[in-house]
Amino acid sequence: MMMAMTGRLFSTGAIVRGAVSHTHLLHPRAPAIGGVRDFSKMTFDKKKTEPENQSESEGKADEGNKGEQLIVSYWGVKPMKITKEDGTEWKWSCFRPWETYKADLSIDLKKHHVPSTLPDKLAYWTVKSLRWPTDLFFRRRYGCRAMMLETVAAVPGMVGGMLIHCKSLRRFEQSGGWIKALLEEAENERMHLMTFMEVAKPNWYERALVIAVQGVFFNAYFFGYLISPKFAHRMVGYLEEEAIHSYTEFLKELDNGNIENVPAPAIAIDYWKLEADATLRDVVMVVRADEAHHRDVNHYASDIHYQGRELKEAPAPIGYH
Amino acid sequence: MMMAMTGRLFSTGAIVRGAVSHTHLLHPRAPAIGGVRDFSKMTFDKKKTEPENQSESEGKADEGNKGEQLIVSYWGVKPMKITKEDGTEWKWSCFRPWETYKADLSIDLKKHHVPSTLPDKLAYWTVKSLRWPTDLFFRRRYGCRAMMLETVAAVPGMVGGMLIHCKSLRRFEQSGGWIKALLEEAENERMHLMTFMEVAKPNWYERALVIAVQGVFFNAYFFGYLISPKFAHRMVGYLEEEAIHSYTEFLKELDNGNIENVPAPAIAIDYWKLEADATLRDVVMVVRADEAHHRDVNHYASDIHYQGRELKEAPAPIGYH
Ligand SMILES: [Fe+2]
Ligand SMILES: [Fe+2]
Ligand SMILES: [Fe+2]
Ligand SMILES: [Fe+2]
Repeated sequence: MMMAMTGRLFSTGAIVRGAVSHTHLLHPRAPAIGGVRDFSKMTFDKKKTEPENQSESEGKADEGNKGEQLIVSYWGVKPMKITKEDGTEWKWSCFRPWETYKADLSIDLKKHHVPSTLPDKLAYWTVKSLRWPTDLFFRRRYGCRAMMLETVAAVPGMVGGMLIHCKSLRRFEQSGGWIKALLEEAENERMHLMTFMEVAKPNWYERALVIAVQGVFFNAYFFGYLISPKFAHRMVGYLEEEAIHSYTEFLKELDNGNIENVPAPAIAIDYWKLEADATLRDVVMVVRADEAHHRDVNHYASDIHYQGRELKEAPAPIGYH
Repeated sequence: MMMAMTGRLFSTGAIVRGAVSHTHLLHPRAPAIGGVRDFSKMTFDKKKTEPENQSESEGKADEGNKGEQLIVSYWGVKPMKITKEDGTEWKWSCFRPWETYKADLSIDLKKHHVPSTLPDKLAYWTVKSLRWPTDLFFRRRYGCRAMMLETVAAVPGMVGGMLIHCKSLRRFEQSGGWIKALLEEAENERMHLMTFMEVAKPNWYERALVIAVQGVFFNAYFFGYLISPKFAHRMVGYLEEEAIHSYTEFLKELDNGNIENVPAPAIAIDYWKLEADATLRDVVMVVRADEAHHRDVNHYASDIHYQGRELKEAPAPIGYH
């Protein structure tokens, strides 16, 4: 629930050039590059062979900076030089220091919305019945399971935020901050994916499955949200309850040694402000706390609808992680 | 290009209760309320009769807080008590102090991307041909024109951001910050709408028109972006060039007295950190500067695609207003 804001500096072309050579120094094995496209492919291929691929995302930043050197002179969109709190360079372009936070681990993980109405029961049993094939598919591969499920988990927030945005425009009315709150949830889920990607690599059929599932789930949630946001938020609330359960199982497997407690990925250490020697266990702990926050926000949103009101009537919980 | 971050405090239930009575004191004319639904309608009806309706949004906040008093005890989603830099209470729930900024008025308003390729020419002439019916419909009613066009302008950023988000999930790859950059553009455009709503009220056929236009434009842009983000961003770049032109005309009408230079709406003063005595002219100035920034970002995004690269390869301009 806390957020740190650090200062920002805007770099000059010279600094960008500096960053490029710096990155090359970090990658003595980087091959000579013909075209930019080829480089893109190369870093992508490298990803499949290297288990720890922080270097890969740095390679991309490198590439991007070169691009800006060409274009920046015309449109004036300057690359930013962002520094961490400790003064070192910020190496992620997909999130910034002011989006990082310390997870609130004190949140109650056991809270549950007892389904009493028919739509609530429907939402509950839909989620429960989805768990059966999921358990069957993943069994005890919790890292892989987490990675795959996060590709789905990041959809509802984006769809809900987009629909409320469009509604706000159509009706000429304020949103109460719910657009941002739901988009923040989507962003947070996407960061879960970016984290688990580093510890579990999807193979070709998992990639294909994700594309198929997203196609179905995006549309289902889109139309579901249009028809009944009350039901949609309740279902997400239950999905989050299941996510908490899965991450608890994940922790058990880590604790009994069935899954190796590897060091936390660098992206996770920066995003959740973890200690430098944090492990996968610490990451699963903070992710689970995030899911508990999403559970609260979505059940709360459903409750607001249940009271016959609109979300905009209750100020949204911003930065509620 | 600047962003101020202020501290946040989290209120207790007691503060919420306090806020409710405080708001009631501000609205001595507020009628006794039977059902929550009715109150919602009442505030909505009031909007049509009152030209300055800051009080209306406060009324909504009031209502929301009461809702939270009922629900907060269970889900723990606490209402936030946010204060402005000067210590007074923050009254907007649709945006927060850390999203406000001082517009960069020094931006070059005359920059233009000369269309040379066929898709660029197509994008340019599509936008140019759309201007003709728009001019005919609005004539010199620039306030109304601005309001109506902002309902359209807030769509592309949301659609683009959503599509890149989904792509990032499907492909297990980082976004380079473009999701956030495009969503920020959408949010900024929506704030333009929230501002112009305060100075021009839509009538029933304008509301109907907005719904129809959004239905068509959302889908067109959605599929257009899927087919060619290069073309989509170029078209938005040209739309922004036209927006700059329209706002320049708006300024001329303000300067020659055809449109009354009324005081700036309170929401605009807070969002762009304007002086307390700012006028509509100041608002149009900062909005026009925003459009110039959107122009740059979108032409830049199109340029990246023209170089055969993907957006994620170039770090996105975050907080580029
Ligand atoms: Fe998640
Ligand atoms: Fe979640
Ligand atoms: Fe705008
Ligand atoms: Fe714009």
